[in-house]
Amino acid sequence: MIEFDPSIVVAMNIYGFIGIAVFAITGVLAGARKGMDIFGIVVIGIVTALGGGTLRDIILNVPVFWANNLIALLIAILASIIAFFLADKLRHTSTTLLQLDALGVAVFNIQAIDKTLLLGYSPAIAVIMGMITGITGGIIRDILTGRPNLLLRREIYATPILAGGIVYVIIIAIIPGVSLYAGILAVAIVLFIRTAAIRWKLTLPGFLLFSGSEEE
Amino acid sequence: MIEFDPSIVVAMNIYGFIGIAVFAITGVLAGARKGMDIFGIVVIGIVTALGGGTLRDIILNVPVFWANNLIALLIAILASIIAFFLADKLRHTSTTLLQLDALGVAVFNIQAIDKTLLLGYSPAIAVIMGMITGITGGIIRDILTGRPNLLLRREIYATPILAGGIVYVIIIAIIPGVSLYAGILAVAIVLFIRTAAIRWKLTLPGFLLFSGSEEE
Amino acid sequence: MIEFDPSIVVAMNIYGFIGIAVFAITGVLAGARKGMDIFGIVVIGIVTALGGGTLRDIILNVPVFWANNLIALLIAILASIIAFFLADKLRHTSTTLLQLDALGVAVFNIQAIDKTLLLGYSPAIAVIMGMITGITGGIIRDILTGRPNLLLRREIYATPILAGGIVYVIIIAIIPGVSLYAGILAVAIVLFIRTAAIRWKLTLPGFLLFSGSEEE
Repeated sequence: MIEFDPSIVVAMNIYGFIGIAVFAITGVLAGARKGMDIFGIVVIGIVTALGGGTLRDIILNVPVFWANNLIALLIAILASIIAFFLADKLRHTSTTLLQLDALGVAVFNIQAIDKTLLLGYSPAIAVIMGMITGITGGIIRDILTGRPNLLLRREIYATPILAGGIVYVIIIAIIPGVSLYAGILAVAIVLFIRTAAIRWKLTLPGFLLFSGSEEE
Repeated sequence: MIEFDPSIVVAMNIYGFIGIAVFAITGVLAGARKGMDIFGIVVIGIVTALGGGTLRDIILNVPVFWANNLIALLIAILASIIAFFLADKLRHTSTTLLQLDALGVAVFNIQAIDKTLLLGYSPAIAVIMGMITGITGGIIRDILTGRPNLLLRREIYATPILAGGIVYVIIIAIIPGVSLYAGILAVAIVLFIRTAAIRWKLTLPGFLLFSGSEEE
Repeated sequence: MIEFDPSIVVAMNIYGFIGIAVFAITGVLAGARKGMDIFGIVVIGIVTALGGGTLRDIILNVPVFWANNLIALLIAILASIIAFFLADKLRHTSTTLLQLDALGVAVFNIQAIDKTLLLGYSPAIAVIMGMITGITGGIIRDILTGRPNLLLRREIYATPILAGGIVYVIIIAIIPGVSLYAGILAVAIVLFIRTAAIRWKLTLPGFLLFSGSEEE
């Protein structure tokens, strides 16, 4: 069994709250349409922010994280309300937002891996749960707001999450007591690859890109 | 712990069955396309009718309500079949249907709040679960049938559910033994606001409507 | 309590793995777009392959089948990767693929019915769970890849699953010890009806087809 430094739990919680706030904001910005009222938009923000962790906990068959701890819910609500009123300003910073989205994904990824390992599952399952938790909120947001979901984009998205997750479980498996630093490194890896992908429109090497014809 | 009058459980079950039937009908009407066969359409009706309560029970980590009680399932199936054969007639009463949909949402809301409180969760979580249960069936219906989902509509939808839920948990927290009347009042509030919104195309005050530009 | 021949469990597992591989391939073919990278596409393949069984296990409130058994996950990943590189070839065999999809649905159906009955649920619930497990992966695939989902198609899809499931639970309820043969028969029924529907564009009799006007 892998042992966790208690400080990583605290650190990851704080990062996790940042992730929740950021995802809530992206949900509001994606969903808001002229004339919609604040409550409908806030619902989209909340679902985007909490959807990934909710699916994680449902699959792991443990109580959902926001049911016994109102802080996550309050952060999602507050961030959504703020985003509602500041939407026009926030939109001018959309690159910043993409990077914040990457931060959210990165942190949700490591949080989910920790939670899954602590429940006794194998590292492979933990990496999968990290992926599920990282991308589900964004996919729900894209489906609810009627846009092509992020899996279909021609831009690196799943790759950095997978890379960060694999590096993380390897490090904590071979070096005891460094989970905090391993977590920070893994978050940095996701952020770096994703930011580079956004900035320079990076893709994987050609043979890993789909070159076939599309189904009609 | 809040105590419940046994009669409210009975009343809410009856109302709940009405909600299931109504949602099944809305699912069939939204999904039916010329040439589709009855079984495909009935599946959409059932998912619309039972989807909200199913997600509620999954999140609450309790057995889904229709697995050990066939009545809910039978009502969903029967209502879907009837709607299949009467679709053209039912469509001419679409305003009535919107009001029935509002009744379904209102009852699912209170049912879910009761169930969540009985499991020992806080009133805030109960209100959230009421919202989730009320809107999920309709959202699944809209996604399955390829239409813009109800959260994106420029019409009050989430607001009355939230208002009814909050009024309900406040009343039963401060006045013991009135849960039946509080439930009826809360259902009436949701129905009234929603019906008024449909009839007069009411919206919230301007500062609570989104006036920003839309993301491209 | 219905008793199961141990050999059916083995047989169904093998068929189940075929179903997983086939669904993964259909997910990749539906999702792949020029320029997308392999990891995004593989995620769609995995979700398509494992989505139905995951929802089944979540609703049944048991651990998801792939969390403690990596074989299913590995098959989904491998099949998705192979489909990524062979997509153009596989597309020329799209009728074959539709039939393989039918095989996957047929097997998932029986697997889910067995699992549900073994947990002590009624045959009616088992048939419903078979339906849910059979169609969910394909619906998720269609939603994620932005195409009209299979429930909306003017082609028999839900009907054979229902027919196979009902025949299966009736046979194993009245004749003990024949679950293996009943399972094979039920799979054959689904395959036969579905293949016939694809080949001759069969539909149900006219009075079971929707002939009303569509909602605008």
